[in-house]
Amino acid sequence: MSARLKVGVLGGMGPDATVDFMSSVIRLTPADGDRDHVPMIVEQNPHVPDRQGATPEQAAAINNELAEMALRLQTAGADFLVMPCNTAHGFIDSLLERIEVPFVHIVDETVAAIRRIDDEANNIGLMATDACLESKLYQDALHSAGMHVLLPSTSEQQTLMELVFRIKAGEQSQALATEMHNRANSLVQQGADVIVGGCTEIPLVVDALQLSVPFLSSTAILAEQTVKYSLGELALPGQP
Amino acid sequence: MSARLKVGVLGGMGPDATVDFMSSVIRLTPADGDRDHVPMIVEQNPHVPDRQGATPEQAAAINNELAEMALRLQTAGADFLVMPCNTAHGFIDSLLERIEVPFVHIVDETVAAIRRIDDEANNIGLMATDACLESKLYQDALHSAGMHVLLPSTSEQQTLMELVFRIKAGEQSQALATEMHNRANSLVQQGADVIVGGCTEIPLVVDALQLSVPFLSSTAILAEQTVKYSLGELALPGQP
Repeated sequence: MSARLKVGVLGGMGPDATVDFMSSVIRLTPADGDRDHVPMIVEQNPHVPDRQGATPEQAAAINNELAEMALRLQTAGADFLVMPCNTAHGFIDSLLERIEVPFVHIVDETVAAIRRIDDEANNIGLMATDACLESKLYQDALHSAGMHVLLPSTSEQQTLMELVFRIKAGEQSQALATEMHNRANSLVQQGADVIVGGCTEIPLVVDALQLSVPFLSSTAILAEQTVKYSLGELALPGQP
Repeated sequence: MSARLKVGVLGGMGPDATVDFMSSVIRLTPADGDRDHVPMIVEQNPHVPDRQGATPEQAAAINNELAEMALRLQTAGADFLVMPCNTAHGFIDSLLERIEVPFVHIVDETVAAIRRIDDEANNIGLMATDACLESKLYQDALHSAGMHVLLPSTSEQQTLMELVFRIKAGEQSQALATEMHNRANSLVQQGADVIVGGCTEIPLVVDALQLSVPFLSSTAILAEQTVKYSLGELALPGQP
């Protein structure tokens, strides 16, 4: 067995999304037993302040908490870092300045994955939190890649946020899944070729098979790439 | 919200059992959002040598790897440690000597839980791995508590081990669940009042509701106690 790089996971945003990410990594790793698996060091950290509607002062506190967590994971031996929360990627300036190991960016990986599954996709329906949309992380990356972005209407977005908070409170009901599907289908009706689940809570309830266009789970893509980076099948960002 | 103690998790034995434990902790924590959850620092460590049939030299290596992992988790800020693998508890002498934070012992917690659910249970059917049985951890704790131990026959035990290894290789099929149920039912037919799932792989496929006697999942019990220790509802072992 070849050596596997150790993955540091900035987790807890939310905790279920972190566990979902870890399960996906396990499922995607070719393994006959415990010792074939990808080594991970994971923080389930409930101390990151709320990312929604953060004031500049709160944003600085989030930046600091994420950087401190990243440094703890680096000290614990992580060879590279991932964070299974899209919204939190709007608060990583301090982290990127302070860590020495590569950081695998969920938005960059997800946008790159769109072209791999459909090289003609043009209109991308984006499901993400308010704070993630405000950061323009996805919009900027999609525009740079020459793609158009379709966003939910104001009222659809409001409903989506309510659903995300229900998932974060532990709900994973069929009713909630149906409501999340309806939000995705609204984007399909607006003309989306692909739906991006740009929030790691969404794939906890939405099943890709029930949409008429491809649904890209940012969690699944991050997990898939994490396994490839750990196994040395891909060069890490910023590495030769 | 009151402060929560940070749980250090010695994981990866196997990886799915670790994720199952984390999910159980999340489910059992009263929470309205991310920030109400139990803080955890988790190592998915695939470098612990195989616990089955370990020579004295291999046992020393396991002892050392577990102690090193415990020290890393302590350095990363863990207030107490847990290990969602029963068998590995046969290799913690070095760990207990070297750490300064409390260690919550899965066997002690599971045996104590039997009396809470059935204070007249006398005959305890034990499902555990060969190495766990050889360590006599459960047998000694059950005898000390005045209970009798029922073990599978040699051929039943051999089948149980094959099932555990199939789970560790990623299988969670209905056929496997049925075979695991049959092993449990054999112990019920021998006269067991309670079945102890003394291996954290077993609850990944066995549903407690399908047995005629109570089934105690050591994973579920460890998760339940972990939440209580973290929330300060119980005093940690060795603490006033």
